[in-house]
Amino acid sequence: MFMTVALVPENTLITATPEEGRKLAMKMARLIIKATQPDETVRNRLRDVYANDAQMLLQVGQVVATEFATIAAANNYWRN
Amino acid sequence: MFMTVALVPENTLITATPEEGRKLAMKMARLIIKATQPDETVRNRLRDVYANDAQMLLQVGQVVATEFATIAAANNYWRN
Amino acid sequence: MFMTVALVPENTLITATPEEGRKLAMKMARLIIKATQPDETVRNRLRDVYANDAQMLLQVGQVVATEFATIAAANNYWRN
Amino acid sequence: MFMTVALVPENTLITATPEEGRKLAMKMARLIIKATQPDETVRNRLRDVYANDAQMLLQVGQVVATEFATIAAANNYWRN
Amino acid sequence: MFMTVALVPENTLITATPEEGRKLAMKMARLIIKATQPDETVRNRLRDVYANDAQMLLQVGQVVATEFATIAAANNYWRN
Amino acid sequence: MFMTVALVPENTLITATPEEGRKLAMKMARLIIKATQPDETVRNRLRDVYANDAQMLLQVGQVVATEFATIAAANNYWRN
Repeated sequence: MFMTVALVPENTLITATPEEGRKLAMKMARLIIKATQPDETVRNRLRDVYANDAQMLLQVGQVVATEFATIAAANNYWRN
Repeated sequence: MFMTVALVPENTLITATPEEGRKLAMKMARLIIKATQPDETVRNRLRDVYANDAQMLLQVGQVVATEFATIAAANNYWRN
Repeated sequence: MFMTVALVPENTLITATPEEGRKLAMKMARLIIKATQPDETVRNRLRDVYANDAQMLLQVGQVVATEFATIAAANNYWRN
Repeated sequence: MFMTVALVPENTLITATPEEGRKLAMKMARLIIKATQPDETVRNRLRDVYANDAQMLLQVGQVVATEFATIAAANNYWRN
Repeated sequence: MFMTVALVPENTLITATPEEGRKLAMKMARLIIKATQPDETVRNRLRDVYANDAQMLLQVGQVVATEFATIAAANNYWRN
Repeated sequence: MFMTVALVPENTLITATPEEGRKLAMKMARLIIKATQPDETVRNRLRDVYANDAQMLLQVGQVVATEFATIAAANNYWRN
């Protein structure tokens, strides 16, 4: 038996590189949307909406930037 | 007698893992909405609205990201 | 004689618990609205608007999350 | 001769109390609006708009919360 | 020969005072808009739009508050 | 063989100057939009939308300010 990890892949904020941190930020943002709207058909329809709307694409950018700020701090900004 | 805890489950920001921290962020966000709109029927109707609207789902993502930033800092990013 | 405290109850960010910190965040958010719109009748009408609107409830969540981040930092996240 | 201080009253972020820090946050937010829209008649008209609109009042709350986060950090959260 | 500095005046976040830090925050916000919309005629027209719209003026306040948070941290909040 | 770096140019948050940090913030914001909407034709059309809309230009400013906050912290604000 094991706990299902549904909101944070691999259950850690630590990544090897900024690039991977950025991917994690995108995944974590999407997993919140998935938890809020579990119906995949609805999600796909809505994804089509925001991927074709200038304002919502900027909003995606805002959410990912906010998630990434946390992940970057967790990794001490991958300074070394 | 005990104080009712209505806004922070278990009255702590400390969680064992990032996954649990993420769940806490979602719960804390929902409890503010509950405190602002205590009528469950109204809340369920509004939840149906935002769960089916691309822009509002992104807004949910923004609120959870902001709550999570605080929880992650409280837990020193679960580094060890 | 004493200074009227209108924006920060008890003029401190320090609280005993996260639950109380969360209540303070909600109060501080409301007191800014009160200072901006001092007419109680208008405020009550507007409160009715945002408590019944999905997008505005999410916005309430965003403001409280932002206030809470400051209060949580002030209290060292109630770690001990 | 002296430099006109138009954006930060008394040119400091340090205040004696959280209450005063909160007032400074409100003033600093207003002074940016004033610098962006110098015409007082227009500003008064627009103030009347946002003070009577639920969504914009919440937006006022968001701006002040963001300014206050900086001021609170500058004052070490008035911990002592 | 020298690198054109188009996004950060004098290529530093350090300023002598909070007032100057605030001016830098406004300039940096404007320079991003300039980089995104290089046509001055269009920018002037859009400036006229947001300077006369209550909601957009609040949004200006939000952007400047966010830029200022970074500049204030860079300057250790001009504490000494 | 090498990993494609699609979200963080050169896979680092460290830059020589604030000006370069600012450019990185703009690039990182754009790369999230690119990852969300991979069709270049659609992106160009939407870019035309937000570059000519006052509110969306302000939103661009907000996203870049948020990305830059992280990059500036990563670089210790280029203090020395």
